[in-house]
Amino acid sequence: MFIIKIGGSIITDKSIKDSFKKTVVDRLSAEIKKADEEIIIVHGAGSYGHIPAKKYNLNQGYKNNEQTLGFALTHANVQKLNTMVLNSLHENNIPAVSIPPHAIMELDDHEPTDMNYDIFRDLLKQGFTPVTFGDVILDKKLGFSICSGDLLMQLLAEQFEPEKAIFVIDEDGLYTSNPKTDENAEFIETINLERLKQLSTPFDNHADVTRGMKGKIDTIKNIVNLGINTVLLNGNKPDRLYKVLIGEKTKCTTVNRS
Amino acid sequence: MFIIKIGGSIITDKSIKDSFKKTVVDRLSAEIKKADEEIIIVHGAGSYGHIPAKKYNLNQGYKNNEQTLGFALTHANVQKLNTMVLNSLHENNIPAVSIPPHAIMELDDHEPTDMNYDIFRDLLKQGFTPVTFGDVILDKKLGFSICSGDLLMQLLAEQFEPEKAIFVIDEDGLYTSNPKTDENAEFIETINLERLKQLSTPFDNHADVTRGMKGKIDTIKNIVNLGINTVLLNGNKPDRLYKVLIGEKTKCTTVNRS
Repeated sequence: MFIIKIGGSIITDKSIKDSFKKTVVDRLSAEIKKADEEIIIVHGAGSYGHIPAKKYNLNQGYKNNEQTLGFALTHANVQKLNTMVLNSLHENNIPAVSIPPHAIMELDDHEPTDMNYDIFRDLLKQGFTPVTFGDVILDKKLGFSICSGDLLMQLLAEQFEPEKAIFVIDEDGLYTSNPKTDENAEFIETINLERLKQLSTPFDNHADVTRGMKGKIDTIKNIVNLGINTVLLNGNKPDRLYKVLIGEKTKCTTVNRS
Repeated sequence: MFIIKIGGSIITDKSIKDSFKKTVVDRLSAEIKKADEEIIIVHGAGSYGHIPAKKYNLNQGYKNNEQTLGFALTHANVQKLNTMVLNSLHENNIPAVSIPPHAIMELDDHEPTDMNYDIFRDLLKQGFTPVTFGDVILDKKLGFSICSGDLLMQLLAEQFEPEKAIFVIDEDGLYTSNPKTDENAEFIETINLERLKQLSTPFDNHADVTRGMKGKIDTIKNIVNLGINTVLLNGNKPDRLYKVLIGEKTKCTTVNRS
């Protein structure tokens, strides 16, 4: 089985409010269907979540009453995005059922507490494809905060020990430095945990409310440390997700433990 | 605190696929806001749920693979309805947050098993208005079945012991027989549990996948039996919900234990 995180920048234009990239999501849905594997999907909140979450400053926790409505608005907006992702999966005959994180877990000062994994397990057993997503969530200490898709990837990987954890992003994979700002950045095909640790610093600079690439690298370290191979691939390039799912060679970065 | 069930026939036209009654829902949202009480909302799935659930025969449990996609499609469609209800509540400044039943409970041969009430409690504590809804759900024995809004009313009433359980329906309340088919039907202002038991039979005839009025009467008996006063009122008539919430006299049926 595989756990796939489809990044918010792949399914939306992160700089434009409520901009769903239906063509890209439809193609990725078709690739997932064609691969015909047991899969859990995590998707980012993209512009549907990040823009209102930033506006109401939700990741800092409860400060004023206006944020309460802001939390509610943000969740409903992410639920709208989730419905569009579900519709695309259904159009490709994937029986996807969503599980919003706020209904199955809470955080405590940004740290996860008990999560209900049974619903994922029972949905899989019944032949469904569980879909969860980055969203706003209650936090025991802060009132509320944000549960990122990357955090969900880590928790689900720990629990389900997939064959691979796959991050579908808007770059071909990892580079020696940020390819968006450094033309000398070199692409990395395979990297081990030790080398990844030395690499993490250059990726700090496109952070968002969920800590951007720095947070993602930390998540990947934690997943790989469990002995789960992790792949980063470009979701804007056709067939790369499909090829990784069926074990064929394609452009991507593979992170191994040793 | 109050628990309000807004019937599927109030928020949709049950005979027409995906027909959301925005004007009615907006008015009810405004009435709830004006009353300014602690509230849990349950809404029906209406035509968004009943039409596909019937098409795929979901309440009978798993029979064939086609139903798996049918379950997924039905849930996504009910989630779409739920997002519209949330939007209406938000436009009226109610910080409504949804909790889909399939994420917090399973059934076992239609009977509820452990439900996670903590998320309702924690949302209320943080100043939110929890919203749940009738939907498709996993069933340990049957694979899947349907969790009606009425069942959710009963479970939440047991757990939270509200001041009143309120059913917002498309009739003024209860009658001595079915007012839609019998012109001699007499309106009932107040009724006790004993008399309600004698009344239940005439209401069998507008059943849907969740057993229609017969199921509702059974639910009401169970709630009233806990000592919780239950009110049925017409959601198509302005101000009735508001008046019941603030304790003013209006046309409705009140069911008391004795």
